[in-house]
Amino acid sequence: MSKVLRERLQEKKTVFGGWCALPAAFGAELLASAGLDYVCADQQHGLLDYGDAVTMFAAIERAGAAPVTRVPAAADWMIGKALDAGTQAVIVPMCETAAQAAAAVAACRYPPAGVRSYGPIRAALVRNARDTAVLGGGPLCLVMIESRQGLANLEAIAATPGLDGIYVGPADLALGLGLEPDLDKPEREHADAVRAILEACRRHGLTAGIQCSGGASGRRYADMGFGLITIAKDSALLQAGARQELAAAQGRGDRPAAQGYT
Amino acid sequence: MSKVLRERLQEKKTVFGGWCALPAAFGAELLASAGLDYVCADQQHGLLDYGDAVTMFAAIERAGAAPVTRVPAAADWMIGKALDAGTQAVIVPMCETAAQAAAAVAACRYPPAGVRSYGPIRAALVRNARDTAVLGGGPLCLVMIESRQGLANLEAIAATPGLDGIYVGPADLALGLGLEPDLDKPEREHADAVRAILEACRRHGLTAGIQCSGGASGRRYADMGFGLITIAKDSALLQAGARQELAAAQGRGDRPAAQGYT
Amino acid sequence: MSKVLRERLQEKKTVFGGWCALPAAFGAELLASAGLDYVCADQQHGLLDYGDAVTMFAAIERAGAAPVTRVPAAADWMIGKALDAGTQAVIVPMCETAAQAAAAVAACRYPPAGVRSYGPIRAALVRNARDTAVLGGGPLCLVMIESRQGLANLEAIAATPGLDGIYVGPADLALGLGLEPDLDKPEREHADAVRAILEACRRHGLTAGIQCSGGASGRRYADMGFGLITIAKDSALLQAGARQELAAAQGRGDRPAAQGYT
Amino acid sequence: MSKVLRERLQEKKTVFGGWCALPAAFGAELLASAGLDYVCADQQHGLLDYGDAVTMFAAIERAGAAPVTRVPAAADWMIGKALDAGTQAVIVPMCETAAQAAAAVAACRYPPAGVRSYGPIRAALVRNARDTAVLGGGPLCLVMIESRQGLANLEAIAATPGLDGIYVGPADLALGLGLEPDLDKPEREHADAVRAILEACRRHGLTAGIQCSGGASGRRYADMGFGLITIAKDSALLQAGARQELAAAQGRGDRPAAQGYT
Amino acid sequence: MSKVLRERLQEKKTVFGGWCALPAAFGAELLASAGLDYVCADQQHGLLDYGDAVTMFAAIERAGAAPVTRVPAAADWMIGKALDAGTQAVIVPMCETAAQAAAAVAACRYPPAGVRSYGPIRAALVRNARDTAVLGGGPLCLVMIESRQGLANLEAIAATPGLDGIYVGPADLALGLGLEPDLDKPEREHADAVRAILEACRRHGLTAGIQCSGGASGRRYADMGFGLITIAKDSALLQAGARQELAAAQGRGDRPAAQGYT
Amino acid sequence: MSKVLRERLQEKKTVFGGWCALPAAFGAELLASAGLDYVCADQQHGLLDYGDAVTMFAAIERAGAAPVTRVPAAADWMIGKALDAGTQAVIVPMCETAAQAAAAVAACRYPPAGVRSYGPIRAALVRNARDTAVLGGGPLCLVMIESRQGLANLEAIAATPGLDGIYVGPADLALGLGLEPDLDKPEREHADAVRAILEACRRHGLTAGIQCSGGASGRRYADMGFGLITIAKDSALLQAGARQELAAAQGRGDRPAAQGYT
Repeated sequence: MSKVLRERLQEKKTVFGGWCALPAAFGAELLASAGLDYVCADQQHGLLDYGDAVTMFAAIERAGAAPVTRVPAAADWMIGKALDAGTQAVIVPMCETAAQAAAAVAACRYPPAGVRSYGPIRAALVRNARDTAVLGGGPLCLVMIESRQGLANLEAIAATPGLDGIYVGPADLALGLGLEPDLDKPEREHADAVRAILEACRRHGLTAGIQCSGGASGRRYADMGFGLITIAKDSALLQAGARQELAAAQGRGDRPAAQGYT
Repeated sequence: MSKVLRERLQEKKTVFGGWCALPAAFGAELLASAGLDYVCADQQHGLLDYGDAVTMFAAIERAGAAPVTRVPAAADWMIGKALDAGTQAVIVPMCETAAQAAAAVAACRYPPAGVRSYGPIRAALVRNARDTAVLGGGPLCLVMIESRQGLANLEAIAATPGLDGIYVGPADLALGLGLEPDLDKPEREHADAVRAILEACRRHGLTAGIQCSGGASGRRYADMGFGLITIAKDSALLQAGARQELAAAQGRGDRPAAQGYT
Repeated sequence: MSKVLRERLQEKKTVFGGWCALPAAFGAELLASAGLDYVCADQQHGLLDYGDAVTMFAAIERAGAAPVTRVPAAADWMIGKALDAGTQAVIVPMCETAAQAAAAVAACRYPPAGVRSYGPIRAALVRNARDTAVLGGGPLCLVMIESRQGLANLEAIAATPGLDGIYVGPADLALGLGLEPDLDKPEREHADAVRAILEACRRHGLTAGIQCSGGASGRRYADMGFGLITIAKDSALLQAGARQELAAAQGRGDRPAAQGYT
Repeated sequence: MSKVLRERLQEKKTVFGGWCALPAAFGAELLASAGLDYVCADQQHGLLDYGDAVTMFAAIERAGAAPVTRVPAAADWMIGKALDAGTQAVIVPMCETAAQAAAAVAACRYPPAGVRSYGPIRAALVRNARDTAVLGGGPLCLVMIESRQGLANLEAIAATPGLDGIYVGPADLALGLGLEPDLDKPEREHADAVRAILEACRRHGLTAGIQCSGGASGRRYADMGFGLITIAKDSALLQAGARQELAAAQGRGDRPAAQGYT
Repeated sequence: MSKVLRERLQEKKTVFGGWCALPAAFGAELLASAGLDYVCADQQHGLLDYGDAVTMFAAIERAGAAPVTRVPAAADWMIGKALDAGTQAVIVPMCETAAQAAAAVAACRYPPAGVRSYGPIRAALVRNARDTAVLGGGPLCLVMIESRQGLANLEAIAATPGLDGIYVGPADLALGLGLEPDLDKPEREHADAVRAILEACRRHGLTAGIQCSGGASGRRYADMGFGLITIAKDSALLQAGARQELAAAQGRGDRPAAQGYT
Repeated sequence: MSKVLRERLQEKKTVFGGWCALPAAFGAELLASAGLDYVCADQQHGLLDYGDAVTMFAAIERAGAAPVTRVPAAADWMIGKALDAGTQAVIVPMCETAAQAAAAVAACRYPPAGVRSYGPIRAALVRNARDTAVLGGGPLCLVMIESRQGLANLEAIAATPGLDGIYVGPADLALGLGLEPDLDKPEREHADAVRAILEACRRHGLTAGIQCSGGASGRRYADMGFGLITIAKDSALLQAGARQELAAAQGRGDRPAAQGYT
């Protein structure tokens, strides 16, 4: 069996991943097969249901990558269901306070450490065990900081015991800073916020993660020290790829193909 | 309402299209939104069911492209179901004789012209009519020539009354010629066969269609005179795109080539 | 448990049914709940997959009606799968010869009487038995006559041993007679053909079935002697109902609401 | 592209719509094709998942109507997901205070105006833009008043900045007033409450919406001044239609066909 | 129609049930067909979506058992949707206070008794009525006690007006007591907690329910006085059954134990 | 990556497998996780669609077993689609002549060896190659002999070049012999036919496969020399397991027998 994401991170320092908005297990399997370390089934902005995510998890892991998911909101039951289905990391959006970060961690841990309800229906199957790794902290818990308030509480959030990492959503972060929402933001204020998150992660031994417009951008963040970097999104690849091929077919100059937000 | 594919072809001479193997309406909608003229839900080699194709048709048309489908085999009932669901063209694989081409055409026409059973459940809805266009030859009927026997009968096939076009599947055609299966085939024998099909189409006023590895290849076929050219495939875009982004992220210079067959 | 369709027919002489083109178990359950004797999941012109039909069968039977299905074509494997899933009648389209009728019957019977493969996965569950009724002729086998050739062979078809009935598809029959396809056909030639089928059924002890535009039309066919009469179709009810309500809302005179072919 | 619902409302003053409880894109497309201005995929009382709603949105828009949805509850993440998928209006149930109304509005707006997370995955595709209309208030935000407390706070709710309308759920409102739940309520108290909501909407420039038993009822509410009026519900049309056809088939007098609550 | 679960409980005193984690209506139908009184579609730890649960409900009821569901969390909207779809009992996880129990009950009742929104889309269909049973307390409301805090508030929870029962989740309860999570727990402290819940139920006229590892364990709990006892879980039956058959095939004597937690 | 089924067979001589009739990827994954060598998604008598089979294949392989499928009938397009989706063996029902066996083999091979159309959409992904193994005979091709005629042609069928094995369907074989359909048949004639198939396989170097009622029966067939033995079926495990647990719960001693045919 492939190494779980936690182990990959420890070995490789930097892992690159894919992102899925489409409810298609084969689409997730295609991304995973490209050699990415993880593929995330996005339940927040993606157009998929929980049942879709479950079949995607199996396909992703079949192809040698780690299944990851972003939950729609910071609700205990969503986090529990994601873990039950065997995700190797859960990304919790819109964390603004240390209390919220602690709640996300607690939702990943069984009592007495946390509040997760016991029923690792597929997770126990995948890990062949009902062991302490499953009972404890096997899957990674990452929260997203994407608002001024989240930035204001960055240090306290990063200090949350049991938290594994902070994942940057550049577009929401931009909105939070009063900027246009996008992935590769040139503005100084945005870059400073991203760097502040990275440094807080370093101080607290956390993994810093980020959503990128593509591999070139991902390379830069890897060089900065980010550890979990999303570089390919299914919907964006389809859109950019189709536009690019059409431009070529029509004899128009190649358009740059950076992935957008669709 | 956008023009149907038949009208687009008459106006533009050349239409470019996308190809879907994934059972995801949104994926098809993304391709359609890129500005392609048509998007094909591939029921032969694609990983989708008929019910998926139906939701894809609506999404494709919503985005301004024409829904097209390839049926798994040359069965009357498959062609009928594709037309009932509102496809604007049906692509029938592995045609080897004029009789088979005539049968494909007959499957698209109601008696007495053909053998289609009446029940245009979604087609009548989409076209707002139960008119002669729907009863007659609204949707295009294309057959694929992809074997030596098909090539041997090319002239007779192309002469089939009511046939709208011939669609080249380069990989199967290569196999039929004893070559390695692929899309952009350099071998002379393959190029000759493709050109022979194109010329037979010209002689008989048919549309020549072809599956390409991408837009650059599609441009060349358009310049040759092909009229219906598939230049973007969902699974290939996902695979090539993810590999490319990963290569960039890892600082490797290698770009994967054009879209392959996955 | 409710009586199976074969028993209902024997008791009531006339059964009325619904027709489903939508892949929604709850839609089928709604029709069944209205008091109809049977509801048919149409795999030929309907927009549903086999897996949808299976969930529809359970919902239909839950609501007290008999699940029925029309297969896309006269293929043994389609008929077998429909029976395995527990349909109480299978309607086989486009029968033109006695040999085809015999083949349809054979597809419903296990060897040595027929050629059905053994695997009544849901049928055995629903009937709580692996008994002779299941092994033998429990579900009804009806073929459709909808062409000139079928009419020409009517007597021979009706004489097919084991055949339970003939189901009239008025629109295809109209096309076969060179008329506009529709449900309630006023033309003499059409009416004569329908009556001929009814009388052949009477002579041979078969059930005569027919697709109607609604209950009023169904009443007339019941009075004529038809035994299995479809009077409500999901897609037509939705379309006619929505149009009618919109006309009322806009203060336009009520439009007649006979179900069309969508 | 058809006009969005906001523009239709401005032009027409009154828009009529359909309502879907079934998880079937083609069902939604049928309602939309009847000429209705909008069709709502009901995630609260309907039997559909989010993924179903997404395919319904495409089919509805393909047919020229505006896709709308009611979320199961007033949760930010539900509203965000509905908007990401491209709904043109979101209906938020059970609003009882101005604070709740303000929260619903905030869930529709990006920071700093609101709290919506950025990821308009399908919405940006449909609108071909990442513009201010998408970033701002393109889709309509309506809240439902359906309790005594909501009525008590009617004026404050209607004064909520950014709110586009109030949608009346007559049955819940009846329950809130101690009456039997139904659509067309004759009681004075109910009528007074409905009128009070309408007048509050007028005072504040809001659209008043309401769920009706059918077009005749809808006509009356249109004459009163309601602007967004639901007159056709898929499940009700199926149930009423099937009952009506069965009554006709059985020779029983036609039953009135007002849509009920199933 | 079979008796609803509330009536079965009154007659039989003890009802045995099945549990489904798989999104397959036929799987649920198989369990129901075995003679179980109820089958629960588990939306909390199961791998199914709401839409799956709806098709499962119909299949379960078709087979003569009562459909039941566990909601993912104690949210009003989840409880409402479960009831709308026709569940005969709703099991609400992780109840720790009397206020939470009262909220669960309120979510099952329409105003003024509760807060449920009116729209019994499938429930009214199944029960053929919009009567007081549907409006009132037809379906059972059970809460789960599975933590120290819940145990501490046991008496107050059991005294909640309108509550129908308490359902024990042995594994979570074990975790709450600092024990290893499992179904058949030998520890005294666990047994005492289970017995305390049973006795509180007796004192307050509630049904005591419990999740068991199988029929043998279920027999013991029935003898103790439990009334609603889950003895068969789809995923566990598949896993244990496959292991057992493989052991037999390999000539190993070892039988895996009772059903585990997968 | 796990070894493919062809390699497993060569090493182990005997492989044991599971069988799925339910459209649930997680159900297939559970069987695969039990340690079985292969799991078959049954498209003939199972209640699943092709799209379900595709997600099941990924889940089965994730769990370390080989995905296998039985096609509904001996149609080239069905065999091609199964291979495209990555099955490691295709089981073709109802083979009666050497010509049919040769056709099944041809459907698995590309030209010139066979007639398979090129488009290994998922197969190429899973095998990371477009190599000769994929182009050639990687997946196993087994035909079923289950009729008198098939038995009569046994020797010729077994001599078919390229055929990998013969799979016995005991129930259909029993019907073919005029016996009651079941899995473990005691009759001499049946046993003789099974043995004759086994010996024909030995003579021709083929794998003999068989469907069993469970592991004990499978052990016996393994000792006889069968190489590919199905010992666990999802629907049967659910039904037998639920009955067994209910019997235990009710204090009845009776255990249901081995897995039946549901």
